[in-house]
Amino acid sequence: MDKYLVLFTFIGAALALVFAVLTARKVLRFSEGTDLMKKISASIRQGANAYLKRQYKIVFIFFGVMFVILGVMAIAGFLTPYVPFAFLTGGFFSALSGFVGMKIATYSNARTANACREGLNRGLRVAFSAGSVMGFTVVGLGLLDISIWFFLLKFVFHLEPQDITSAMLTFGMGASSMALFARVGGGIFTKAADVGADLVGKVEAGIPEDDPRNPAVIADNVGDNVGDVAGMGADLYESYVGSVISASALGVTAFHNINAMALPMLLAAIGVICSIFGTFLVKTKEGASQKQLLSALSRGTNFSAIIIAIVAFPAVYFVLGKENWTIYFAILAGLVSGVLIGQSTEYFTSDSYKPTRNLAATSETGTATIIIGGLSVGMLSTLMPIIIVAVCVLVAYFVSGGAQSSSMGLYGIALAAVGMLSTLGITLATDAYGPVADNAGGIAEMAGLDKKVRERTDALDSLGNTTAATGKGFAIGSAALTALALMASYIDKVSSIEGGAEKIANLNITNPTVLIGLFIGACLPFVFAALTMNSVGRAAQSVVKEVRRQFKEIAGLMEGKAEADYASCVDLCTKASLREMIMPTVVAVVVPIVVGLILGCSGVVGMLAGATASGFLMAIFMSNSGGAWDNAKKYIESGVHGGKGSDCHKAAVVGDTVGDPFKDTSGPAINILIKLLSMVSIVFAALVINFSIL
Amino acid sequence: MDKYLVLFTFIGAALALVFAVLTARKVLRFSEGTDLMKKISASIRQGANAYLKRQYKIVFIFFGVMFVILGVMAIAGFLTPYVPFAFLTGGFFSALSGFVGMKIATYSNARTANACREGLNRGLRVAFSAGSVMGFTVVGLGLLDISIWFFLLKFVFHLEPQDITSAMLTFGMGASSMALFARVGGGIFTKAADVGADLVGKVEAGIPEDDPRNPAVIADNVGDNVGDVAGMGADLYESYVGSVISASALGVTAFHNINAMALPMLLAAIGVICSIFGTFLVKTKEGASQKQLLSALSRGTNFSAIIIAIVAFPAVYFVLGKENWTIYFAILAGLVSGVLIGQSTEYFTSDSYKPTRNLAATSETGTATIIIGGLSVGMLSTLMPIIIVAVCVLVAYFVSGGAQSSSMGLYGIALAAVGMLSTLGITLATDAYGPVADNAGGIAEMAGLDKKVRERTDALDSLGNTTAATGKGFAIGSAALTALALMASYIDKVSSIEGGAEKIANLNITNPTVLIGLFIGACLPFVFAALTMNSVGRAAQSVVKEVRRQFKEIAGLMEGKAEADYASCVDLCTKASLREMIMPTVVAVVVPIVVGLILGCSGVVGMLAGATASGFLMAIFMSNSGGAWDNAKKYIESGVHGGKGSDCHKAAVVGDTVGDPFKDTSGPAINILIKLLSMVSIVFAALVINFSIL
Repeated sequence: MDKYLVLFTFIGAALALVFAVLTARKVLRFSEGTDLMKKISASIRQGANAYLKRQYKIVFIFFGVMFVILGVMAIAGFLTPYVPFAFLTGGFFSALSGFVGMKIATYSNARTANACREGLNRGLRVAFSAGSVMGFTVVGLGLLDISIWFFLLKFVFHLEPQDITSAMLTFGMGASSMALFARVGGGIFTKAADVGADLVGKVEAGIPEDDPRNPAVIADNVGDNVGDVAGMGADLYESYVGSVISASALGVTAFHNINAMALPMLLAAIGVICSIFGTFLVKTKEGASQKQLLSALSRGTNFSAIIIAIVAFPAVYFVLGKENWTIYFAILAGLVSGVLIGQSTEYFTSDSYKPTRNLAATSETGTATIIIGGLSVGMLSTLMPIIIVAVCVLVAYFVSGGAQSSSMGLYGIALAAVGMLSTLGITLATDAYGPVADNAGGIAEMAGLDKKVRERTDALDSLGNTTAATGKGFAIGSAALTALALMASYIDKVSSIEGGAEKIANLNITNPTVLIGLFIGACLPFVFAALTMNSVGRAAQSVVKEVRRQFKEIAGLMEGKAEADYASCVDLCTKASLREMIMPTVVAVVVPIVVGLILGCSGVVGMLAGATASGFLMAIFMSNSGGAWDNAKKYIESGVHGGKGSDCHKAAVVGDTVGDPFKDTSGPAINILIKLLSMVSIVFAALVINFSIL
Repeated sequence: MDKYLVLFTFIGAALALVFAVLTARKVLRFSEGTDLMKKISASIRQGANAYLKRQYKIVFIFFGVMFVILGVMAIAGFLTPYVPFAFLTGGFFSALSGFVGMKIATYSNARTANACREGLNRGLRVAFSAGSVMGFTVVGLGLLDISIWFFLLKFVFHLEPQDITSAMLTFGMGASSMALFARVGGGIFTKAADVGADLVGKVEAGIPEDDPRNPAVIADNVGDNVGDVAGMGADLYESYVGSVISASALGVTAFHNINAMALPMLLAAIGVICSIFGTFLVKTKEGASQKQLLSALSRGTNFSAIIIAIVAFPAVYFVLGKENWTIYFAILAGLVSGVLIGQSTEYFTSDSYKPTRNLAATSETGTATIIIGGLSVGMLSTLMPIIIVAVCVLVAYFVSGGAQSSSMGLYGIALAAVGMLSTLGITLATDAYGPVADNAGGIAEMAGLDKKVRERTDALDSLGNTTAATGKGFAIGSAALTALALMASYIDKVSSIEGGAEKIANLNITNPTVLIGLFIGACLPFVFAALTMNSVGRAAQSVVKEVRRQFKEIAGLMEGKAEADYASCVDLCTKASLREMIMPTVVAVVVPIVVGLILGCSGVVGMLAGATASGFLMAIFMSNSGGAWDNAKKYIESGVHGGKGSDCHKAAVVGDTVGDPFKDTSGPAINILIKLLSMVSIVFAALVINFSIL
């Protein structure tokens, strides 16, 4: 049976990639519009290309060093020889996901703007197709990587299941490291450019967003592509692959057979196919309202989710055997929880609901109150997701037989994460089309297109904020579940190594090493958020100074008679973000090893639990505060509380600017952090067991 | 021996109270100054009195309800009959601590202002003496409550040690509930008034701080007394008593004798006596610099700490026996950690160091960047305290023989908290004098005293910010250690109840109930911070509207020809803060019972661990962000980055306003929250064991 399963996974991967290629060709057939539009799009593309090229150079050095370290460890007998290579492929595919996404996004922005000249539906089709290319590239490459490695390790090298999962967890580590670089680097770039452009352009000079007189405007649009697209692509590749391989690893422990290991891959492949069907339902009529647009997108995702829920049942039944069919409910719990977390996110961040509307009202009493208000909206919004995940974990654990065998229960938790991410192909499409629409709006503004065009791209963009919120719900929820699964994998891994079992004999929460590990782990997301926010702050300050300089020194710039030096801002953002992205990633890799060497394996388990709990909370807090500020500003711009240009609006712009690094740099990077910590711990487990102090 | 120990504790209590009375009489001998000063001071006093009276009425209802609930549980056999009464006395003494502190502070503010007319040293003496009254009232009442109950339960009712500690933990719960009301209510009052006064007066109307034309100016000064003084008094009473009784409870489990139980009380009594000596060293010469003032205060606290460190050694040696003398190092670790956390706090929040200076520089690029910067300073500042507490816990655990018996190790952790708080008498004096100096400055301004006077009160006030930072370090550090000790007490308590041992048989961190409890517990400080910040926001908005209304409607107010309606602002703040303080406290009491009834005792343990870790981090983050903004603003006011009135200063004022509820409402309240959660869990343990679902 296992051969058929791997074949099916491979088919899923192939279908996703073929669908992505066909969709890409369809998108490319659209026209890029006027010469000016082509020129603008080309310079955005050029900036994004240049950035990624330089990013990959730095990442290449990191991967080289890690390859050598892992190689030495493999030679010393701490790891199997496949591990260093698995690490490389994980990083490679993760980077490729981001790269492809960025490519298609930068080729679609002008096309979307041009399509919006003809109509809203046409614009939606182009932007959504671009998002689909990215979505299905991510899942396709993920499944491809998994199925190739599985095939090689199982059928060519004939490894034992434990060794297969060990090697596969290492490509997870490669993917996570790459994702962290991409998220942090891209996140710093995009927010430094955004904050810089807004602070000087909008607040000081009083010119509109995306005004071609603003020297940071191209950098801002490049940032959308390298941060919100390339960063997100690498990030979700990591989430997807991480959830599947951690479930596979726990399947081996729970069932001691290859079927339980292959089930997560099968589910992922089913998800891909159902998602492809879903994309065909996304279309809307001309002059569609915001609500109709949203329902067009929801139709696609809901349809996919329902089919997956139906098809998953026979899959579980046949693969695990009829005595284990209740595990199906773990997958269902994951699917439902993802949707619910998304809805909770939407409630707290959409201006259709009370929290964001009330937040907009706090601007009446000034900047300070809207800042306080936004922080408390974010903090309060952690409650529902925590309860949803708590119920999901309990359900997944007990329906999978956790009461009899805890490893079966943990397998159930991991499958819930796979269930949650099974619709990733289409949810990512609805998520990734946002930045494309955003860019299209920028091009419409810069190319001086008709006002109607900008209105249409704005409608698409604003919708993108809501779908992005839902997408973030999936990413954060699955990160928590995957991190718990990886923690369990870590314990399995340690137990399987000689001398390891005694190191984790006492995982009682009152054991001081566990407790201290917990404290340190809980602290990491705070420190990580601080580091990344500082990076954005520093990078933004340099952009602010450069934009101010240009306004002052380039004669005729404000009057539109001279052209700004866009390239210098792009270059500045590139340098700053690459310089700043190194430290956080290195911290994430080094800390678990250091904690392990001092506190031992029980300390590491405590650290992972603490980091998961506090990271989950911080990620939700920061993402939702940022989202609420963003939409409160948009709500005010719609005409309430004095509308654009009023004091309330100015206060809201400050809120939005504070929210930028919250929701697009620090928040999402924390999701990756908590998984990377576990994967590093797993890969270096043997080292820690042999050399730890406590 | 035990009789002598309780006698000694009683003597310590008596000495503290006598010293407080004598100091109070000394303070009252100073003159209140001009008639106008007397009038202003009287109206502040009147407002504070009126507020506390109404607060106590509401608290009275809460305590009545809880008394009935505990009474019913006692009748049903879940609790000993002493418990409901112990609960009441804890609340009573905590309230009394706050009340006395508020009284002396409101009688000393004008006296301090008047003394500053004569000289800085004289001003320092009056303000510091007022602080000392409060400091020694808190520790005196704490020790009195402990020694009376200990005497009654042990020598009159002849209870078993376990039952003694159970009853004593209940008065901890009473003290914590009262402290939470006082901190939250007072914190909302003071910050609503402060934010309201600043936003309209300073930012919109452009009049200086404490200008008599500002209608919220009296409310602002009342707020300092009911929040920073009465709230802090109740809060630290709770910390002090909580650390002693949790150590006593663990002493019983570890040594099964009354000596180990009495040691924490003895150490506290030694601390009181050493602190009294320390106060005599606090004096300075005229025209002393900021640095000399600080060294005058440090001399007092350092001297006290050193003597305690010396005297504690023979105390441990004789009470616990020579085979346990290494436990002394646990106490020392606590003392040293408290100082180190204070220093780390100072580094991150004082404008003598890089973080706050860099933060001030971020104001150059606007409001958004100083907000982002302050948040990241706060988040980054969590790292050092976490490491310090981690090392302290490890040291305290292992020097106390934790490797052999975990209950001895946990006793060591609890003793470290007692060690940290042993200097509370004097550290609280250096902390509580800040609001007195702050008020004195307000009175100097309102009474139109010479500029020199205001400069002197400002010097005292600004120093107060630094000592307050150190004080907060002690409060937060001890809260974490005490919460860990209470968690251990909870496990002891559950094990001692029939049917309880099996409920906590699996405290493994991978047990899903523990894990989910951990997630929920970690979420609580976020939710609690959100609730209290929202409360401040709502209350502040109503003040803003009232102040705006008065500026608009009272003719001649801005020209100084008409008097503002101060009383209406005081009344507004009173009503708003009392309305808002109920919800957070009820949440803190209800949640641990609900979590227990659903997830069972192992879920409660997870919750306590999660709340302690994330609460510690949130409290430090919020306190230090707030402190850094406050001092960055003061640093700018000293003349850098354009000084007062510049755009940088305006940005810094927004930062400071955001920081207000951070550092004076939400942050400190979280310290109380994490202990109250444990105490409620302990008191309701029997209920949970009998009726929980899981």
